Amino acid sequence: MKALQLSADWQPKLDYTPSEEETRTRKVKSGSSVWRNPKLELATLPDPEVQPDEVLLEVAAVGICGSDMHMVESSDDGYILYPGLTKFPNILGHEFSGRIVEVGHYVNNLNVGDLVTAEEVNWCGLCDACRRGLVNHCTQMEEIGFTTPGAMAKYIAVKAKYCWKLDELAERLSNESEALVLGAMVEPTGVSYHAMFNRLSTWKPGNYAAVFGAGPIGLTAIALAKAAGASQIIAFDVSENRLETAEALGATTALTPPDNLNEALLELTRGHGVDFVIEAAGAPTHTLAPLTNGLAVGATVAHVGRSERPTSLSLEHYQVRGVQLAGSLGHAGHGTFPNVIRLMASGRLDLRPMVSARFSLDKAQEAFKRLESREDAKLMLLPNN
Amino acid sequence: MKALQLSADWQPKLDYTPSEEETRTRKVKSGSSVWRNPKLELATLPDPEVQPDEVLLEVAAVGICGSDMHMVESSDDGYILYPGLTKFPNILGHEFSGRIVEVGHYVNNLNVGDLVTAEEVNWCGLCDACRRGLVNHCTQMEEIGFTTPGAMAKYIAVKAKYCWKLDELAERLSNESEALVLGAMVEPTGVSYHAMFNRLSTWKPGNYAAVFGAGPIGLTAIALAKAAGASQIIAFDVSENRLETAEALGATTALTPPDNLNEALLELTRGHGVDFVIEAAGAPTHTLAPLTNGLAVGATVAHVGRSERPTSLSLEHYQVRGVQLAGSLGHAGHGTFPNVIRLMASGRLDLRPMVSARFSLDKAQEAFKRLESREDAKLMLLPNN
Amino acid sequence: MKALQLSADWQPKLDYTPSEEETRTRKVKSGSSVWRNPKLELATLPDPEVQPDEVLLEVAAVGICGSDMHMVESSDDGYILYPGLTKFPNILGHEFSGRIVEVGHYVNNLNVGDLVTAEEVNWCGLCDACRRGLVNHCTQMEEIGFTTPGAMAKYIAVKAKYCWKLDELAERLSNESEALVLGAMVEPTGVSYHAMFNRLSTWKPGNYAAVFGAGPIGLTAIALAKAAGASQIIAFDVSENRLETAEALGATTALTPPDNLNEALLELTRGHGVDFVIEAAGAPTHTLAPLTNGLAVGATVAHVGRSERPTSLSLEHYQVRGVQLAGSLGHAGHGTFPNVIRLMASGRLDLRPMVSARFSLDKAQEAFKRLESREDAKLMLLPNN
Amino acid sequence: MKALQLSADWQPKLDYTPSEEETRTRKVKSGSSVWRNPKLELATLPDPEVQPDEVLLEVAAVGICGSDMHMVESSDDGYILYPGLTKFPNILGHEFSGRIVEVGHYVNNLNVGDLVTAEEVNWCGLCDACRRGLVNHCTQMEEIGFTTPGAMAKYIAVKAKYCWKLDELAERLSNESEALVLGAMVEPTGVSYHAMFNRLSTWKPGNYAAVFGAGPIGLTAIALAKAAGASQIIAFDVSENRLETAEALGATTALTPPDNLNEALLELTRGHGVDFVIEAAGAPTHTLAPLTNGLAVGATVAHVGRSERPTSLSLEHYQVRGVQLAGSLGHAGHGTFPNVIRLMASGRLDLRPMVSARFSLDKAQEAFKRLESREDAKLMLLPNN
Repeated sequence: MKALQLSADWQPKLDYTPSEEETRTRKVKSGSSVWRNPKLELATLPDPEVQPDEVLLEVAAVGICGSDMHMVESSDDGYILYPGLTKFPNILGHEFSGRIVEVGHYVNNLNVGDLVTAEEVNWCGLCDACRRGLVNHCTQMEEIGFTTPGAMAKYIAVKAKYCWKLDELAERLSNESEALVLGAMVEPTGVSYHAMFNRLSTWKPGNYAAVFGAGPIGLTAIALAKAAGASQIIAFDVSENRLETAEALGATTALTPPDNLNEALLELTRGHGVDFVIEAAGAPTHTLAPLTNGLAVGATVAHVGRSERPTSLSLEHYQVRGVQLAGSLGHAGHGTFPNVIRLMASGRLDLRPMVSARFSLDKAQEAFKRLESREDAKLMLLPNN
Repeated sequence: MKALQLSADWQPKLDYTPSEEETRTRKVKSGSSVWRNPKLELATLPDPEVQPDEVLLEVAAVGICGSDMHMVESSDDGYILYPGLTKFPNILGHEFSGRIVEVGHYVNNLNVGDLVTAEEVNWCGLCDACRRGLVNHCTQMEEIGFTTPGAMAKYIAVKAKYCWKLDELAERLSNESEALVLGAMVEPTGVSYHAMFNRLSTWKPGNYAAVFGAGPIGLTAIALAKAAGASQIIAFDVSENRLETAEALGATTALTPPDNLNEALLELTRGHGVDFVIEAAGAPTHTLAPLTNGLAVGATVAHVGRSERPTSLSLEHYQVRGVQLAGSLGHAGHGTFPNVIRLMASGRLDLRPMVSARFSLDKAQEAFKRLESREDAKLMLLPNN
Repeated sequence: MKALQLSADWQPKLDYTPSEEETRTRKVKSGSSVWRNPKLELATLPDPEVQPDEVLLEVAAVGICGSDMHMVESSDDGYILYPGLTKFPNILGHEFSGRIVEVGHYVNNLNVGDLVTAEEVNWCGLCDACRRGLVNHCTQMEEIGFTTPGAMAKYIAVKAKYCWKLDELAERLSNESEALVLGAMVEPTGVSYHAMFNRLSTWKPGNYAAVFGAGPIGLTAIALAKAAGASQIIAFDVSENRLETAEALGATTALTPPDNLNEALLELTRGHGVDFVIEAAGAPTHTLAPLTNGLAVGATVAHVGRSERPTSLSLEHYQVRGVQLAGSLGHAGHGTFPNVIRLMASGRLDLRPMVSARFSLDKAQEAFKRLESREDAKLMLLPNN
Repeated sequence: MKALQLSADWQPKLDYTPSEEETRTRKVKSGSSVWRNPKLELATLPDPEVQPDEVLLEVAAVGICGSDMHMVESSDDGYILYPGLTKFPNILGHEFSGRIVEVGHYVNNLNVGDLVTAEEVNWCGLCDACRRGLVNHCTQMEEIGFTTPGAMAKYIAVKAKYCWKLDELAERLSNESEALVLGAMVEPTGVSYHAMFNRLSTWKPGNYAAVFGAGPIGLTAIALAKAAGASQIIAFDVSENRLETAEALGATTALTPPDNLNEALLELTRGHGVDFVIEAAGAPTHTLAPLTNGLAVGATVAHVGRSERPTSLSLEHYQVRGVQLAGSLGHAGHGTFPNVIRLMASGRLDLRPMVSARFSLDKAQEAFKRLESREDAKLMLLPNN
C-alpha cells in the first residue's frame, strides 16, 4: 500500500545516552535528542496484517498535527524538533477516521463497514494508572503514528479497544464523507475536552473563558467552550489569521496578547475576571505566569499546551482568589471520544471551519510544506480519494 | 400603588392544627390546609418603604408561575391548591425584574437606574445550612410573593443581597426592555440550572438527556441542556402544545410518554440509555419509577418537580448501572443567577419563545384566567407599561 | 490439587428459558432459576495451567462470603439461593490472597514470591463501560469463584491485571501470614470503599454516618468510616452478636432498628440528622424507605446491599434536604484495592476482629455448616496450612 | 476589662501610598508597609457592648498564632512583619473559645452558658463571593484580632453567625475546660481542613500524604491526615523539635528536607510518589518548586502557607502525571468548623500534644517572648483563669 513514511538517522546527541531498552527497541523517549536528518517519503509498504484483537481500516481522512510537523522539521543541527516518544522509520498520522474492511476474530463489537475513529494513546490496560482509569498516564503507552504505524496510508490496523464508531455522526449529518472528515478531528478535540471537562469538574455554563493559543488545540477548546455554554470566550494568539478562525469558531473576543493581560481580562469581564483558563499555546511562561487578579474567585486553569521549562506562577493569587490548576494530557478514556462524537452529531460542534484544505496522499508533501507557515488551522489528507 | 393582591380566609382544616407560631405570624407551612376562598384583586396599597439594606424596584416584568396559579385556584372544598409556605393577604409575583429607583443607605453595590432581578428564596445567611453555603435549605427562609410582598405591583422593595444586575444582558442584547423580560425568567431557569449543574457535577457535554415535563421548569431545563452541549434532548409531556414548545427550545425528540419508556430511551440512544434525567413533571411515580435499563451506565437523575408521595425506584438498576439521584430545590446561591444571566447574555439561552403573551397589570386577571388551561408556557405581566 | 468444588444440576425452572448463549456456555445470569441440588465436595482436580497473562498463586487465605453460602444453600424446592451470574461445577472462593509460584511470560510487574490479592470482578477492559474506567459495570464480566475457578483450592491462576501486591502490608505489619489473612479481606472491604469514597465525592471527615447491616460488608463500612474520620457511626442490625462486632470495629452506637428511625437519628445527632448513610443490609425497603428528616441537609445515601424489589423513597425529603443517593456495585478499579491495602498497612484498618475462626481446606465443610447461623462475621479458610 | 493591646505608629513607607479609604479607616491592606514600632501592652479597656446580632463571650482560651507574632515583631527598620490587613490599636487574638454570658436580642440559636468558638474570617454575606458560598474570599472581610478587637481579653463580642457550639465536644470529652482548649484550636485546624477536604474533593483514605512545614498549620494538617485515613504521612521541617511533634501527631516519617526531595518521596512510597501534598511552610519556592516525579499520577497539591513571591513549578510534570494544585485560604463556611469540632469530639483528632504551655493573661508577654524561638507548636492563653 501507499504510505507516508518518515525515516531518520539514529545519532544520539553527545549529552544523551539511550538506555539499553531504547537502543534495543529503537523507541526513544526524547526524539529530538536522537533522530537526525528526517526524510518524509511516499513509500510502498506491505498492507498491515490484522491481529485477532484488531480491525483493519481503509483510511478516509487524516489530519496533520503540529507534532507531525515537529517530526518532519529539524533544527539547525539536523535533529528533529519533536521532543517526545518516537521510533523510526514509521508511517505518520494519528488524527484519523476510516471504514472497517476486516475484523480480527476476537473482536465482537465492530463490523466490516463501520465508520470509526481511534484514540492515538494506546494504553496498556494493565499498569497501575490504567487500572485506576487514568489511561492517559499509562506507563507502557504506545502512540499511533509515533511508535506504531500511523494513518497516512491506505490502511491502518488498530486494536478494537481504541476505536469509536461514527455511526450517529454520519446519520445525523446525513453525510458519510463529511462525518469522516469530522471524525478525524475527534482526537485533537478530545485533548481539549479532557482538559476542560474531565480533569476537574468545575466548568459551569455561563463561565467567562479565556483560551491562550488559537492553534488546532486552542481552536477546539474555543469550539467546545461555545458548545458547553461559555458566556464569553476571550482568545489570545499572535497570528491575525488564527484570531479570525478563533472568531469563526466562537470566540467573543480575539486579541493579540495585550501589555496588561489582567487589566484586559478585568475590563472584558466587568471586573470579575475569567472563570476558566485554557492554556493551549504551550507558552505558560508568557500566558499563565502573568495571571493574577484577572482570575475570578474560584477560577480554574487547565494547562494543555506542552512546555518543558518551569513556569513561575503567582500562587499568592491562587490562594487569595481560591484558584485551582490542572495539568492535562491526552484524550483517551473517560468517555471523551464518544462525548465528542455525540457533540459533533448534535450539530453544535462543527469544526469544519478549521479545515482550510484537503489533499490526496500523493499531494501530502505539499500539505506539509504549506503548513510550515502555520497559517492554516488544519489540513486534511484523504488517502483513499 | 397598584398591586395584585391575594386574600384568603384563615380556616384551618379539622385535621390540621396550626402551631402557636403559625397562628401568631399567619405564616403557615401547609397553605392548602389553612387558606380558603382565595380572592385575587387589583388593589391600591401604600408604596413600600425601603429599609437600609434594601433597594426599591419599579417592576418591569413579572411572570406567572404554576405556584401562583395554585394559590389562586382552589379545590372543591374551597381550599387553595398550593401546599407550601404562605401568608395572606399578600401581593403575588416572584419571577421578576425591574429598575432600581431608590437605594437603602447600607447598600454599596447597586445604584439608582440599575436593572436587576432577584432571588425568590430569601435565605437568612445565619442558620447552619446558609453558613455551609446551602442557602436553598435555609431553615428560616422567607419567600417573595409567598410570605413577603411580591412583584405584581408597581414597586417592590428587595434586600440588595438577593438582587443580581442585568447590565451585561441589556448591553449584549442592546435592548433594555427585552433584557427585562428575560430577566424575569432567570428565577425559573435557576431552578433547573441548580438541579443540573450545581447538585452533582456529573453533567458532560455530549450527554444524552431526558426531560420529563415540558411545563415552565422543564422547558428551561431543555433550553439549558441545549446551551450546555447535550447531544440529544428527549422531552416527555402529555400536552401536544407543550411538546411543540419543547422542540422550539431545543428538544431533539418530544414525545408523549410511551408504553415502554425504557425501550424508547434505548432505541433513541442506540442502546446506551440516557446519561442525565431531569424530572420536572412533579410526577416521579410515573416518570422515575419505571426507569430501569433506559438509564445509561453512570447516569444521573435530577429530581426537580415537587411531589409529596413516596416514589418506588428500582435501586437494583441504580446499582447495576452505577446511577446517582439528587433531590434539588431552589435557585439561590452558588452563582446560579449570574451564570444564568450570562448565558442569556451570550445569546445561547433565549427563552422568549416560552412567552406567549404579555399583559398590563390591569389585565392580570385575564392572564390568570387564560393560564387555567395550562396551554401557555409563560405569561408575562408588565406592571409599568 | 485439592479444591472445594460446587456442583449442581442444570434444571431451568419452568418460568425461565435460558438463552442460547446461556445454554451453550452454562453461564447463567439468574443462578437461582436454573441450578438445583447443589453439592459441595472436596475434590481432587488438575492444577491450573498458567496463561501468558496470568500468575499462579498458592492460596494462603480465602474468606467465605454470604454469596458463597447462597450458592451452597437451597430453597425448599432445591434451587440455590444465589440469584446472580453462575456456572457449575466450579471451585468456590473469591476473597483470597496467596503467594505467586509461577508467572506467565507476558507479565512484567509481578514476580515469584510476591504476596498478592485479586479483584473478583474480572472486567474485560474492552467494553464501553471499561473504557470509561467504570469497570464494575463491565458488560462482559467474568467473576472468580462464580464463573471461573475460585480460590478454595491449593492453587489459583489469575490474570496479573487483577492482582495487587501486599508487600507494604506485610512489611509494615512485620508478619506475612497475618498480612495474607488481611489480604483476603481486601475484596469485601473494597465493596464498601467504592460505595463510600468513589461513587460521589461527598464524604467529609467529621461526618455523622449510619450503617444499616452489620454483616461482612456493613462491618467493613463501619471500619472504613472510623478510619476515614467519621464523628459518629450509628450501626443497625437485628443480631446482637453482630452489633457487638460492630462496636468492636468502631460503631459509636449499635442498635436494633428502632420503631422511629428518624427520631433516633435526630436524637443521636443533636437534631442535625446523619450526613452519610450506607445501606449494607440488602433490605432497602426497611432501611432506606423510612428515611425522612433523619437525613441531614446535604446527606448522601450509598446503596451497597443487593435487593431486587423496588424501594419506595421519600423523594420530597431528598429535595427539601438536598440529599443524593448512589447505587454502588463492585470493588474493582479506581485505585480501590491499593487504597484498602495501604489503609490496612497503616494499622488504622484492622479487620481481624471480624475473623472469628480459621479452618484448613479439609475442614471447610464445617465452616460452611457453622456459617448457616450467620453468627460469625467472617470465617477464613487457609488452604495451604 | 483587661486586654492585650497592640499599638503601632502610622508611618507609611515612602513607596506605599495608602488609599483614601485606608487613610480614613486606618484599616490597611499591607500592614508591613505602614505600621511601625509595634508595642504590646496589657491594657484596661471598656467591656465590649453587645450588638443585637452578637453574643458576648467570657474568653476561656486563646492561642498565639504565627501572625500574632508577625504583628508584634518588627524588621530592622521598625516595621511590623505581618504583610496583611490590619488596623491598630487593636486587641490581638483570633483562635479562641469561651462561654456566652450575654446574647443580643436578634440571636435565636445561642444561649447564655453555651460554649463556643468562632470563625476569624468575618465574611459579609452580601458580596458576590459570599453569595456563591465562597466566604473565605469575601471582598468586604473583617478579621477578628486584625481589624476588629480580638480575644486576648476578658471578653469579646462576636456576631452569632460566626460562632459554633462546642457542646458535643464537651460532652463526649466529659471535660469542659479541655473542650475549651481544643475549641481554641478549631480555627487553625479549619485552615488545613479547608485546604485538604473542601477545595478539591480528591482526598482518598489510603493516600500517601506529604506535609511541608510542621508549624501550627502543618501540624494540624498532619493530625487531620491521620484522622482521615492517610496511609503514610511524610512531614518535612527544618526544626528537630517540630519534627518530634509531627511524629507525636501522626507523621509516619518526619524529615529535614533532603537534597533530593523526589527521590526521597519515591523511596518512601515504593516508587508511586505522594498522592496529596500540603504546603504549610509558606516557602513554596523551596517545597513545591522542586516537586517533579515524586508526585504520584493524579496527585493533588494544596497550597496553604502564605508566600508573596511567584513560585516556579514544573508544569510539565503536572501534565505528565495528571496533577492538580489548589490555592487555599481561610477556614470559614463549608461546614468546616462543625466538622472539625465533631472530629475532635470523636477523640480521633486530639491536638493537645501541640499545646506546650498555658499562660494567664498577665503572663501573656512572656508567652510572646518564648515563641520568638519558634520551638513551641502552640502556646495557649487562658484569660479568665
